[in-house]
Amino acid sequence: MAIYPEIIEKLIEKLKKLPGIGPKSAERIVYYLIQASDIEVISLGEAIISLKREVKLCQKCYNFSIKELCDICLDSKRENIICVVEEVKDLISIEKTNFKGKYHVLWGRISMLENIKPEDLKIPQLIERVKKENVKEVIIATNPTPEGENTANYISEMLKKIGIKHSRLAIGVPLGSEIEYIDIHTLKKAIEGRKEL
Amino acid sequence: MAIYPEIIEKLIEKLKKLPGIGPKSAERIVYYLIQASDIEVISLGEAIISLKREVKLCQKCYNFSIKELCDICLDSKRENIICVVEEVKDLISIEKTNFKGKYHVLWGRISMLENIKPEDLKIPQLIERVKKENVKEVIIATNPTPEGENTANYISEMLKKIGIKHSRLAIGVPLGSEIEYIDIHTLKKAIEGRKEL
Repeated sequence: MAIYPEIIEKLIEKLKKLPGIGPKSAERIVYYLIQASDIEVISLGEAIISLKREVKLCQKCYNFSIKELCDICLDSKRENIICVVEEVKDLISIEKTNFKGKYHVLWGRISMLENIKPEDLKIPQLIERVKKENVKEVIIATNPTPEGENTANYISEMLKKIGIKHSRLAIGVPLGSEIEYIDIHTLKKAIEGRKEL
Repeated sequence: MAIYPEIIEKLIEKLKKLPGIGPKSAERIVYYLIQASDIEVISLGEAIISLKREVKLCQKCYNFSIKELCDICLDSKRENIICVVEEVKDLISIEKTNFKGKYHVLWGRISMLENIKPEDLKIPQLIERVKKENVKEVIIATNPTPEGENTANYISEMLKKIGIKHSRLAIGVPLGSEIEYIDIHTLKKAIEGRKEL
């Protein structure tokens, strides 16, 4: 005899596949759902299904979109500067700075360890895009991690070949931080990149 | 302009209500779902909806059930001893010990702080049940926490009034533990409850 009715066991299996959810939290979620109101549970199930049906990726920049092109790509007031990010969440962070250019989401970073190659990301699409569009500049905003740096270098090489102006986010000491606690690699980059006043 | 398409924002809101899921993990789950296969996402949504449609509580013991009575209550080989637990997960644990009686799930514990009264739990139903059924014994297996003890005492008083034999799980040192690390309250109970050899 199964411990839970089969329908519960199956749902626990499915929930366990979601990121950050282990067997115990999957169980707790099931308990919660069984006690929640019909409308809450059914609308959650339907929201998950319609997410998959309605949300696509923008065919130009690969941001989330419910149309073929996302609102940012369709916004004619934006400058033709492309900010290249690893993930949509990075785009969200940069949007908050009031950046008025456009984006290109790579959906990851080049990684030897995980065997992620440039063709597995939206890098070929980026190169095609800058060739076609009249792009003023590409800002490479991959993460300042070894893999992000590596990805930035690769993209930089490709853009050099086709003669497109491009830049990298400045590496330096974050505002509000204390020099004492900043790692030496960052500090070294901050000194190298110092600005004359 | 909303940061995410509205359908994503709405799903994040719904996911955040689930136990153990904060804003960051809700976002990560949405990212995962968008990249997962159609079949995986749709079957998750459908499993959540059918959970609510199909899983009910057993009308006798309040365990999960897809029929009016659960498999345990319908099992004629089980003894008429009722083990009272706070939650279904406690029932699951006790089932693993090969206990061959039946259960009664309270769906919580009496709590002054949270204003949970006996009538908010399945306690009136327990009393009615033992009055009607030919119950040999009630084992009160609420948690050995202050609130669980309090709930056990309340149930014990009720069962005394109607003259039903009842018992409480033994409190003592857990197998495999080291005396040195056991809290003094447990140790005191273990000494009080010592068994002659």
